[in-house]
Formats: sequence, C-alpha cells, structure tokens
Amino acid sequence: MIERYSLSPLKEIWSEESKYERWLEVEIAAIKAMEDFGEAPEGTSELIRKNAVINVKRILEIESVVDHDVIAFIKCATESMGDEARFFHKGLTSSDIVDTALSLALKRCCEVILIKMYELEAVLKNKAIEYKYTPTIGRTHGVHAEPTSFGLKILSYLSETQRNIRRMKEIIKEVSYAKISGAVGNYANISPEIEKVALDHLGLKPCEVSTQIVPRDIHANMLNAFALTGAGIERIALEIRHLQKPETMEAQEPFKKGQRGSSAMPHKKNPILCERLCGMARMLRSYTVSGFENIALWHERDISHSSVERVFLPDASLTIYYMLTKTTTMIDGLIVNENRMLENFNASFNLVFSQRVLLKLIDSGISRENAYKKVQELAMKSWNERVDFKGIIKDDTEISKKLSEEEIDELFDPSYFMRNVDKIYSRFGM
Amino acid sequence: MIERYSLSPLKEIWSEESKYERWLEVEIAAIKAMEDFGEAPEGTSELIRKNAVINVKRILEIESVVDHDVIAFIKCATESMGDEARFFHKGLTSSDIVDTALSLALKRCCEVILIKMYELEAVLKNKAIEYKYTPTIGRTHGVHAEPTSFGLKILSYLSETQRNIRRMKEIIKEVSYAKISGAVGNYANISPEIEKVALDHLGLKPCEVSTQIVPRDIHANMLNAFALTGAGIERIALEIRHLQKPETMEAQEPFKKGQRGSSAMPHKKNPILCERLCGMARMLRSYTVSGFENIALWHERDISHSSVERVFLPDASLTIYYMLTKTTTMIDGLIVNENRMLENFNASFNLVFSQRVLLKLIDSGISRENAYKKVQELAMKSWNERVDFKGIIKDDTEISKKLSEEEIDELFDPSYFMRNVDKIYSRFGM
Amino acid sequence: MIERYSLSPLKEIWSEESKYERWLEVEIAAIKAMEDFGEAPEGTSELIRKNAVINVKRILEIESVVDHDVIAFIKCATESMGDEARFFHKGLTSSDIVDTALSLALKRCCEVILIKMYELEAVLKNKAIEYKYTPTIGRTHGVHAEPTSFGLKILSYLSETQRNIRRMKEIIKEVSYAKISGAVGNYANISPEIEKVALDHLGLKPCEVSTQIVPRDIHANMLNAFALTGAGIERIALEIRHLQKPETMEAQEPFKKGQRGSSAMPHKKNPILCERLCGMARMLRSYTVSGFENIALWHERDISHSSVERVFLPDASLTIYYMLTKTTTMIDGLIVNENRMLENFNASFNLVFSQRVLLKLIDSGISRENAYKKVQELAMKSWNERVDFKGIIKDDTEISKKLSEEEIDELFDPSYFMRNVDKIYSRFGM
Amino acid sequence: MIERYSLSPLKEIWSEESKYERWLEVEIAAIKAMEDFGEAPEGTSELIRKNAVINVKRILEIESVVDHDVIAFIKCATESMGDEARFFHKGLTSSDIVDTALSLALKRCCEVILIKMYELEAVLKNKAIEYKYTPTIGRTHGVHAEPTSFGLKILSYLSETQRNIRRMKEIIKEVSYAKISGAVGNYANISPEIEKVALDHLGLKPCEVSTQIVPRDIHANMLNAFALTGAGIERIALEIRHLQKPETMEAQEPFKKGQRGSSAMPHKKNPILCERLCGMARMLRSYTVSGFENIALWHERDISHSSVERVFLPDASLTIYYMLTKTTTMIDGLIVNENRMLENFNASFNLVFSQRVLLKLIDSGISRENAYKKVQELAMKSWNERVDFKGIIKDDTEISKKLSEEEIDELFDPSYFMRNVDKIYSRFGM
Repeated sequence: MIERYSLSPLKEIWSEESKYERWLEVEIAAIKAMEDFGEAPEGTSELIRKNAVINVKRILEIESVVDHDVIAFIKCATESMGDEARFFHKGLTSSDIVDTALSLALKRCCEVILIKMYELEAVLKNKAIEYKYTPTIGRTHGVHAEPTSFGLKILSYLSETQRNIRRMKEIIKEVSYAKISGAVGNYANISPEIEKVALDHLGLKPCEVSTQIVPRDIHANMLNAFALTGAGIERIALEIRHLQKPETMEAQEPFKKGQRGSSAMPHKKNPILCERLCGMARMLRSYTVSGFENIALWHERDISHSSVERVFLPDASLTIYYMLTKTTTMIDGLIVNENRMLENFNASFNLVFSQRVLLKLIDSGISRENAYKKVQELAMKSWNERVDFKGIIKDDTEISKKLSEEEIDELFDPSYFMRNVDKIYSRFGM
Repeated sequence: MIERYSLSPLKEIWSEESKYERWLEVEIAAIKAMEDFGEAPEGTSELIRKNAVINVKRILEIESVVDHDVIAFIKCATESMGDEARFFHKGLTSSDIVDTALSLALKRCCEVILIKMYELEAVLKNKAIEYKYTPTIGRTHGVHAEPTSFGLKILSYLSETQRNIRRMKEIIKEVSYAKISGAVGNYANISPEIEKVALDHLGLKPCEVSTQIVPRDIHANMLNAFALTGAGIERIALEIRHLQKPETMEAQEPFKKGQRGSSAMPHKKNPILCERLCGMARMLRSYTVSGFENIALWHERDISHSSVERVFLPDASLTIYYMLTKTTTMIDGLIVNENRMLENFNASFNLVFSQRVLLKLIDSGISRENAYKKVQELAMKSWNERVDFKGIIKDDTEISKKLSEEEIDELFDPSYFMRNVDKIYSRFGM
Repeated sequence: MIERYSLSPLKEIWSEESKYERWLEVEIAAIKAMEDFGEAPEGTSELIRKNAVINVKRILEIESVVDHDVIAFIKCATESMGDEARFFHKGLTSSDIVDTALSLALKRCCEVILIKMYELEAVLKNKAIEYKYTPTIGRTHGVHAEPTSFGLKILSYLSETQRNIRRMKEIIKEVSYAKISGAVGNYANISPEIEKVALDHLGLKPCEVSTQIVPRDIHANMLNAFALTGAGIERIALEIRHLQKPETMEAQEPFKKGQRGSSAMPHKKNPILCERLCGMARMLRSYTVSGFENIALWHERDISHSSVERVFLPDASLTIYYMLTKTTTMIDGLIVNENRMLENFNASFNLVFSQRVLLKLIDSGISRENAYKKVQELAMKSWNERVDFKGIIKDDTEISKKLSEEEIDELFDPSYFMRNVDKIYSRFGM
Repeated sequence: MIERYSLSPLKEIWSEESKYERWLEVEIAAIKAMEDFGEAPEGTSELIRKNAVINVKRILEIESVVDHDVIAFIKCATESMGDEARFFHKGLTSSDIVDTALSLALKRCCEVILIKMYELEAVLKNKAIEYKYTPTIGRTHGVHAEPTSFGLKILSYLSETQRNIRRMKEIIKEVSYAKISGAVGNYANISPEIEKVALDHLGLKPCEVSTQIVPRDIHANMLNAFALTGAGIERIALEIRHLQKPETMEAQEPFKKGQRGSSAMPHKKNPILCERLCGMARMLRSYTVSGFENIALWHERDISHSSVERVFLPDASLTIYYMLTKTTTMIDGLIVNENRMLENFNASFNLVFSQRVLLKLIDSGISRENAYKKVQELAMKSWNERVDFKGIIKDDTEISKKLSEEEIDELFDPSYFMRNVDKIYSRFGM
C-alpha cells in the first residue's frame, strides 16, 4: 500500500522486518513446545532467541540465489548460531512457519481494526444522541419522503457498525487458526500435541484439519468482512457528500484550518475525505474477488494464492484501517446545519405530509382508491404551482366536508413523525 | 435462472406467484397485528385472507399502467373485497411489504440450502470414514509431496463444509430481520409494537433500526456466504477433475448409465459435472460484486438495488442449491481407485520419503545445511535417472556410515505417515 | 434473464428453440461446404434442411438419458431422415457446432445492440443541440464550480457513447470468429478449406487457430464492452438522479401518464428508471468477473466455462439491450427545467466567478499567492454571510484600487463561460 | 506495489518524484503554448524550467497543511522563481495538470508494456516453430482426446498474445487523450487552441470533450486490457503447471541454478513461477472491478476515483509488466520433454483414434448411431481391461467384415493428425 494510506500500527505489522520476526517467533514457539515434550534440550529456544539473526538485506540476498524465501530466512537466522541450529525448523515445513506467522499477523491486524471499529461506534453513538430529536427530511429515491430525525440516520450507521463489529469478532476467531502439521497436513514429522502447545504459546489454535496450509476460505471471509465494513463507511460518506451539496447543505465534513478546496475556486468546500472513502470502499470489494479465487487450490496446496496475498492482505487491511480512522475523526467533527434542515424541510410545500392526509381520509370513510386519487391530484397541483399543500387541502370542498380545519392542522404537525424515536433508541439502550 | 439449473423447492419459492402470496402473507400478518391492538375490527384479516385475489396476469396488466408493482398488487388483491379493503395495506408503505416478504423468501431459501449442506456434510463424513486409512500421495504445487490418507482430503472438505454451515446459520439469523416501519423507518403510521407482533406471526424479527428498507449489508453478506460455499465445492470439484485425468485416474465422478462422453470420442469419461460446478462457483462470486455495491444507497433508500436483486437473489440461491444437490450425489457415488493411488505413489521413485531421510541425517549429527545438500543431490539423481531413491540412499557411502540398512528401510515405510490420522479424526468425533 | 428485462428481438435469439435452429444452421452449412468439395453428394444439405426435425421437448427427453446435449440434438434431428443422415455432423465434433452457433448468436446480439447504440447516439445528439447554449452550473465534488452549458454535459455522454460504439464494432469483428476444426483444433477430420466455406455461408470467419473451441478472451472482452457501455449509461442515469432531487430539480426522467410514484406518498416523482439503470450497470460488471475466469481453460479446453455462459451471455446481452432501449426513450423524453438551472446558478452568491476574479487580480499585478488569499477570504465572507460575492468584491478597498466597477461587472458575465462551446461542438461536426 | 513485483522502468514511472516531474512537464508545456499565442512573454517556459524546484519532501510538508497536493506542488515549484511565477499554472485548474500528467504516465507505461508483449510474442513464435511437428496428446476435460502438435498449443498462445497486442495498441491511443480545458471542461480560462499545442508538445491529444477530467471509461478499458492479457498468461501458466505434474511431466518451467524447491522435500521441482503468474492474473481482474465503478462520477467530476487510481493504476500496470517479463523468460527457457509426450500418448491404449474408426465405419455404410454404439462398446472394453484398442478393433468380427487389417492400421497413424498443421501455421506467415 502506498505510504499515504498506510497508518501505524498496521504499517509496522506489514513491514518485511516484522514478517521475519513473526517467522522467528513461530520457529521459537515450535522449539519451545519440543522442549516441553523432550524433543529438544531445555534452553534451546532461549539460545535460539539469543543467537538468531534477522537481517532483511541478508535474507533477500540469499533468496536471490535460492529463490525460496523460507530457506533464505533459515540460512540467515542460523548463520551465527551454534549447535542449537540443528533444532531450528526441525521437522517443519515452510508453510508451518509462513502460514502460522500469517495467522499471527492477521489476528493482530484484525484486533487493531476492531479497536478502531469500537471508536467509530462510540462517535456514532455520541452523534446519534446529540441529534436524536433534530427534525430533518427523510428522502427516498433522492426525493423528499417524510420527516424524520437526523439522529435516526446516524443510529442506522451505528447499527450497521455494530453488525460489522459482530462479524469482525467472528473473523478474529477464524484467523486465529493456524497449523504446524507438516508438508501435507498429516503431522508426518511433528505431533498434533506439539502443534497445540506451540500455537498456544502464540495465542493461536490448531486447524481441525489442514492441508499444507490453513484453508483459504478463512482469508476470503476476512476480505469480505473488510469490504462489508468498507461499504458501511461508504454509506455514511455518500450521505455526507449528498448533504454537503450546496443545494442541500445540511451537513459537512470538517474542513481543516488552512485547507484549500481548489487551486482555482477558493470558495469551494469539497467533501474530499468522503469522496476518498467512497473510492476506498471500491478497492476493498475489488480485493474480495481474488479472495474467492484463492480458495480452490490444487490438491494439498498450490502456491498461486501467495502472490495475491503478499499484496492484497496488507493492502486490504491497511485500507479498512485508514477508512475507519478517518471516518471516526470525520464523524467526530461533523458540521451539522440544523437550520438548513428545517429550511429544506419547508421547501417541498408541506407535501411530505400527504401520506397522513391520505390515511385520515380513509379513516373518514373514503375508499383507499378514491382517497389516493384525490390526494395525488392535489399534491400535483401543489407541486406544479409551487403552492403550500396545506392551503390546497383546506380549500378543497370535498375534503372540508370530511375534515375540520383543526383536524387538518394536526395532520401537518412534524412532531408526529418523532413520536416513536424514543422506542427505537431504547433498543440500543440509549 | 435458466430452467436447467433451477431445482425444486427453490424454484417455486422464486416464482412470481409465490412472491405475491408472500406479499399477501405480510399484509395479512400486519392486519392481524392491528386486530390484536384494536386498530382493525376482529376478523378483518380472516375476511381478507378469504377475499383477496392474487392473479399474476391481472397484476402485471395493472402494473403496465401504473408502473408500480405494489400498487398493482393492492388493486388486484382488493378488487373483490368488501369493506375490509379499507384496512388492506393501511398505514403501510410498499417496502414494508416487499422487503418483509423478501426476508421471508430469503429465510426459506437459506433454510432449504442449509438442509442440503447437512446432506453434503453427511456424505462427506461417510466417505471420510470409508477412506480413512487409504494411502495416497499428497501433492503440493501439483507435485508429489508426502504420503497421506485419502480420507484426510475428504476430512478437509468436511471441515470446510462445517465452517460454511456455521456461517449459513449466522446468515439465516441475519436474513430473518424485516421491517414494517414506514416510508423512512420512523414508524410514522404504524407502531413498533404492531410491527413486532406482525413479524412474529411470520417468524421474523424487527430490524433494530431500518430506513425504508432492511439494510443491504445483510443481503451482501448472504451472497458472500453463498460464494464461499460455492468455492468450497469448487475445491472438491477441482480435486476430482485432477484425479480423473487419465495420467492420474485416482478417482472419478459417477458416470450415468447411458451417458455419452463425447459425440466424437466414445471412450471419453469426462468430469463434466465437476467442470460445471467449477463454472458455477465463478457465477457465485460474480454475484457478490453487486451485493457490495447495493449497500450504500442514497439517504433513506434509493431503489437501484432492486433490479440487481430481482435477478441475482434468485439466481445466486438457485445456483448454490443446485451445486449442493449435485455435489452430494456426486460424492455419494464417487468412484475411488485405490490401486491406482498406490501405483501413482510408487511412480515417483520413493522420493516422497526424502524429508524423512533429511531429518534422520540431521538426527545423526549432520548439519541441516549439509544434510539438505546431500539429500537434494541424491534426489536429483534419482529423479533424472528414474531410479529408486531408496537404492541410491543405501548405496551412498557417506550415508551408510551414519545409517544402517534397517534404519533406512524404516524411513521408507508409508504407514509412518498415517500414524496421526486417528488423532485428526478424533477432533471430528470420528 | 427474468421476463421483465427481456426485450425482443434479443429474447428470441436466446430461446432454446433458436439455439437448436442455429445448431442446425451450422450443420447444414458444413454439409453444404462438403458438397462444394465433393465430400457429400449434391443436394444432401437441401434434403437435410427439409427432413431435419427440431423439437425442443424431444431433445431434452433424449438428453435426460444420454446427458449430452449435442448427441441428443443429433438424434432428434436425424430421426426422420433418410440416408442423408449419414452426412449429418460427419467429421464434426460437438464444439464445432455449439461454438460456431454461439458465435452466430453473439454476432446477431451485438449487431442488434449496436443499432440501439446508434439510436442512443441520435437522441443524445438531438439533446446536445437543443441545449447547446443553455447555461447551467457545473459541479465538481457535488459543489458548484463554474458555469457551463447543459448541452456540454450531454455532449460528453455522446462522446462516451461514440467511444463505446467504436468498441462494440471491434467486438462484432471479434465474435465473428468461429471454428470447425475438430476435437482439438487440428482439423483431424475436416479441412481448413471446408471450414472456411462453411463459415462463409454463415457470415463468420475461421479463428486463426483454435483449440476445441473459440478462445474465451473474445467473450470476456465482449462482456467488458457491455459493462463499459453499461457504466456509460450509469453515468447519465446518475446525473439525472442528481438533477431530479427536489433541491436541484434541473431535469427529470419522463413520468408516464398514470404512473404512481409511491403507494404512500402521491406527490413523489421518483427517478425509478434511472435508479434501475444504475442497478443494471452493477449487474453488467458482475458478469465480467466470470468472463475473465473463463479464459484459462485446461489444455485444449475444459467445459467449466459452459455453465457460466449458458446464464451470463444471455443475461448480459439482454441487460445491456434493455438499458440501451430504456435510456434512449428516457433521454428522448427528458424533462429539462431551464429556469431552475438559472435559479440554482444564482443561489451560490456569484461565487462561481471567483476564479475569474483571481485571474484578473493576478493580471493586475498581484502575486498569485496574495491574490488567492484575498479571493479566498472574500469568498468565505460571501459564503458564510450568504451575501453576493460581486458586491463584496466591489466593496473591497484593495481590489477597487486595481479594478474598475465596469471591469468587475465584466468578470461576472456568464456568457464568458460559453464562448468556446461552438469550438467544442465543431469537433463533432455539430 | 510491493518491491518484489516492481520492475524497472515501470517502477520509476510510478515514483512520487516522477509524478511531480510530469506535473512540471505539463505546466511547462502549457506555458510554452501560451508563449506561442502571445499570452506569455517568450522565454517564460525556459525560465520556469530552470527555476522550478521539485522537492518531494517539501511538497508533502506543504500538503500536510493545505491538504491539496497541486497547491502544495505549485507553492514548492514557484518558491524560488522570479516574476515568471505569475504565469505558472495560470488559467489552469488542478486537473488540467494532474490528469494530463496521468495520461502521460499511462501512455509511457502502456508503451513499455507493449514492448514486453512483442518480446513475449517473439519467444512464443520461436517455440511454435521449434515444436511445430512435435506430436503430443490433445486433452479436453483433462482427458486424452486426439493427437495434436505441441507447436499448435503454443501457436494458440501466440494468437491470443497477438489479439492482446492489437487491443493494447488501441489502449495506447485511448490513454493518449488528455485535457487542459479548465474546471468543468468548457475552456473558461484557456482556449482549445492553446490546449492543442500544449498537448502536442507532450505527444498527447485533446479529448473531444471533457469534464474536469478525462473520462474514466478509458482507464477502465485499460485495466480490462491488462486483465485480458493477464488471463492469457494465466492460460499458458496453467498449461505448464499441468504438464509439469509428475504423472504428466511433458514440460517444465526453467529451474534456476541453486534454486530450492522446498525446505522439506529437496527433490521437488515446483512450477512456482507459473503458480505466481496465476495468482497475479487474479489480481489483475480484481483491479477491473473498481475501474468500472470509477466511470460514473457525479456531475462534472467527483474525486472518488482518485484514491482507487493512486493505488490501482500503478499496481495493475506493474503487475502486468512483471507477468510479461517473467513469462517471456520462462517460455524462452521452457523445458520440453518430447519423449514423455510420446509415452503419455501411448498410455491410453490407442483410444485416441476412436473418432477415426467411427468415421471410417460410417463411410463403410454403417449408420452413425450403430457405428457409435459399436465403437463406444469396444472403447469401453479397451479402457476397462487396459488392452490396446487397435487389437480389439481388429478382433471384432463385425468390423473385420467391413475393414481390412491394412485399412485399420492406417486409421491408427498419428501423422494423420498433423496433416493440416502447415496450413494453420501459414496463417501466421510461419
């Protein structure tokens, strides 16, 4: 991933250096487990930890000759060891190390990502409370529908975030599976017991059954979860982009001090962060495509998934982490223009109350079909002549036979649409 | 979906007729709930159930005029009703019906799919037991690696199927959420209490918060789960395609009595079902792409997701259902050629035991680096001259100083690679 | 594809019946070519045309036994033939028929699609001319940028459509390649000369080299072209959805007489067609994913692509055809609100002229940096206080030292932004 | 893109430094054009070239304050200029620079990629000639079909490569379009004439009409072309992976001196490069998904495409460049085992000649249906009993009534299948 979108601590997790350190971590955990079972002299793992040398430059140098990264790593790590080198990587196959270390990396990534999700949840909760009773127009098809509360919009993002948190917790469980089961998964040279203890040292669990590697549906599922979370952020970002349009102007992403909107049009306040987030959501769904293709490998494994994962696993996790980080800040500083919400509300001639009129007419004994026709006709008149719908309703002779002026006024009361907000919030303990 | 791939009962779930019946089901559930709360006279829902007319042709006729499917449905349903028609769809918005009915459909689909997954699980279990100790060569990179058990391969599919079952159960929970919360999700004209009771009648649960519709991350997640399950089947199908190659011929999909392999080459037994399954796995991942894009809708909903869902939700669920059905039959009738497995095993000059030799040499005191070089050199010799590796090892003067002939023989014992099979199976209670 | 989105004549091209008729067409063309080369008695192809029976029900009946569609077709077609049956399918392999017939189908599809593209081009041209000088606000990031002409927007769609037409013409060339080259593409039982003549009869060309089938990059490329065209339509549809928002209301898709926007909100005029088109663009890009995966088949062909193509080739071509048809009608009846364009234009306090002010200040000798700061400061003032930018500029003492009132007035003339419109149009011969 | 897959000169094209240099290139070209039209004093562009400072660190420093990369670039570039700074970026909008510079970068990338495609074409040509008459078994469904020439396989890759070359040449034309047409594409502050001259200086052409940016269908189309080319390579790599399986062993990717196949199994020669290439083909199709989504931007542009392009345009072009480079070397050093091809050929009991027998029987007067049944029956016998098919044919009493032993021998002559190879090659002028 490019520097611009690589944030700490994820950036460091994906450095070459960290990768080799994780490899070493796994090698050491395996040896420690062997010690526990008497298959290596006590203290071997300590000696190895002390004497192993991880030198990225040196490893790449060796790899350029042997064309095999784990062999290069082993050679480098053991070069300055004494006799303990004999136990290094003993009975292991490359994938025992690489794939277990990958699980370590993914688990750490996902845990950091989960923390960011909780932070996003927290700011969404705050905003949902802050705007709980702020009236705004609800829109469907982009068109004014019925009044609602601005807080409810945010509550909907909160709820989606909570679903994504629930999914991410499942993902963390899944990526915590690893394997030290040999070249084809049958524990040819190392026992299931040693695997269990070794993985335990690392905070991981053994796959119930593996091939040479951890099954790839797990990684695909993780990429899907990232893309779902990304799409949830896209939903928020898209809303703000809409609300920030000058014709609407109901909300705005925060504008940094000193920030310039355009080199040519100094007045512009562009929702560039939200636009960027929308683009990044696309990236995340792109990555999922390869995730699915990586599942059906040949026999006990082919290595075609590896090039994809070298690039896409860091890229996808860095992308979602960046998105979560920026979205949290953005929501936290969100500029909300409550006055403008009211203005926009009023701009559609009170037509948003038409459903209430319709229902009242049905209650008054008019058939649904006739009531609908009548309301539609008057609504069209209001819309085309840009005249207040309430006045038109009051002026209609047919309707005035059924409804008093007072009854009509009541129908146009916006607070009516807020009366269930409390009940909805209570589902969130809010 | 084309007829060819549409199997009952899913096919019927997705018929136009069933769709309208589900709509009616939801309308009735809503009215029944209103009765419970005294908002409609008792018996209204019964009257409506009796008098409502669902006539697909008639509905489409009306739709061609009004260009709105729910309005057409309501008109048709109520045409032959009496006064109870006043309560039909009362206080509801189209999406209350359409989206809740969609949840009903998806829940039923997924339940039927889950049953098929259990059936697949069962046949995999049987086969895993049947071939628990069948020796075969494990392959990585398509190349002989180390001996393993054929049952272990199947156990790995079983395990993946179980993960996918676990995921599908989560999906069923998710798609069971529905909404009768009005045009923008704020319960403008119907109360959360009525929604709860109505959905309860249908075996569904209210979304914690909705917009005009149920949030679309749920549907995207379902498509992902289908694609994961499809990729799991692809993994099985791909393996059988490989094993059915005449050079390998270790297993074969069942060949129907009377079936012809090719119009030109009568001897051919082609793995056409497995090939078809691989293609269908591609289809399933295609569908996920749109699933993600359907999440970020405008404001309280735009309807851009609808065209996609009209096509992809039936198509994707029918596809995975077809795949599961056919895979189960295929696995059940799988032809396994144990003799050929042994033959192939022997065809690589016993080189598959090289790792054991390597480890033994290290144990005998040779450094890992030197042991590796030695084994590699002799392995190359065996491979290039097509001569048995065991013989070469025995003939090597350096090695024979370290290892007795007996010790060498022991290293080439295939049963060695099976010794942990029981332990792996025991994790599955098998 | 569902009935709803299947339009004639594409629907008929993809019927089962048409498929078998195309198969027969290819068989006959091959026999006719054999006659030309003396490999079949003259008149055989005529006899076959007369006596061959295509009966979909019967074919499916046979297929249910033999599990091979071409064998079933041959059996059915020849059942009522005399001796000429001996020449039917002689020397051919199934794929010679199926794949050549597929090329026929795709060529016909693409030709019909191309005609629709020309129709779309024509209505876009008309609209571009009609609104050539209609001033509207150009928007970037969703925010007012600089004035432009509404015609220019449409010209940009026209231009994209023309690029897509150019691409589609290339696609038609590509899908016109077919093959009658036998089981593995080496003309084992039929000569390249006969292939050439046979394909000539069908308006097709021989692949330069084939395997058992026509190479699948061609089909993938076609799916890509559909998706590009679909995305071009999405761009148009997305713009109209934006312009139809009540806060903007600059344009609207046509509203059918009798059409109802919402079952609950009779005043709503929703851009449902444009929304549907946006959804369908997603479907088209979904299909491309499998197209790419279908390219790398095993050896001289595996049949994994077939299930995908049975579904996706009809579905994708029907989808783009539907989209083109509907978009053309929609553009043709597009409602454009020129008054509202002017109103919106004026709503941003003349800030859209800020760039001109900036440039004039630089011309007057102020440094870019200082001019920018000054303009930005005054623009912010205008924006925040919702006051006309022109007035603020005139009131600024620093600026008035550099620019006369007349000069300032000139800077705020919208026609300035139209002065190059003619030149742009002239590139299109318009 | 990670270092591992980033090859020169593409790596350098995508460096941050190069990007800013291209920006400067565009700025200078614009000023030079202004000079030509008398809108800037002669020599200004030369002065600017001399005095402009590109300092990546400084630019990023400024950007961290202003949050706008072009403004940061301008500030840095002009800091050490004299009065000529007034003409720098004059009348331009950021996108004039950024998007035109992007076209420059893409054009250069694609040209370098095209050269690599020609190199691949050349090695494929060599190999196609080398193995023109090498008999090998053709396989369909992974199963032996009919004999063919190994050269024909390669010719098919050559042909696909040539199609992809043709497409890439179209892409180069498309990405050569650029724009200096102002904030919304209407040449508000710069004339079409100046644009033309400026782009001419850069080897680019003006878009017929643009918005703020070059239309994104062009970039999507480029990503598609990359993915098509990638899938073509995947087809080659997949074939070699198959042929390198020890049961087949007909070909092998070159094995580097010193390379180690596995840390555990020293005898293994794994097709790791071909596997890697297959993975990378997946990456390329992933990128296309976002390409399509980037087309439908809001109004005269929104910037959501930008984050995607920052990552995916370099990544995709580097990936295809890497793939082409490695594939060329791989094909060049391909190890082909002609002996093994013959061996495998013989391993299917001469069943691959069954189609010829079938046709001969039809010629001899037996009905197609009966001939097919007879051949299938005998073929099954041969297959099941693992006995030579030719012998079985000769022993059949019914057949021997129709065909002499000599005639039967002739049917089993492999050279028969080569007799049209010359004609196919001649289409390639080979």
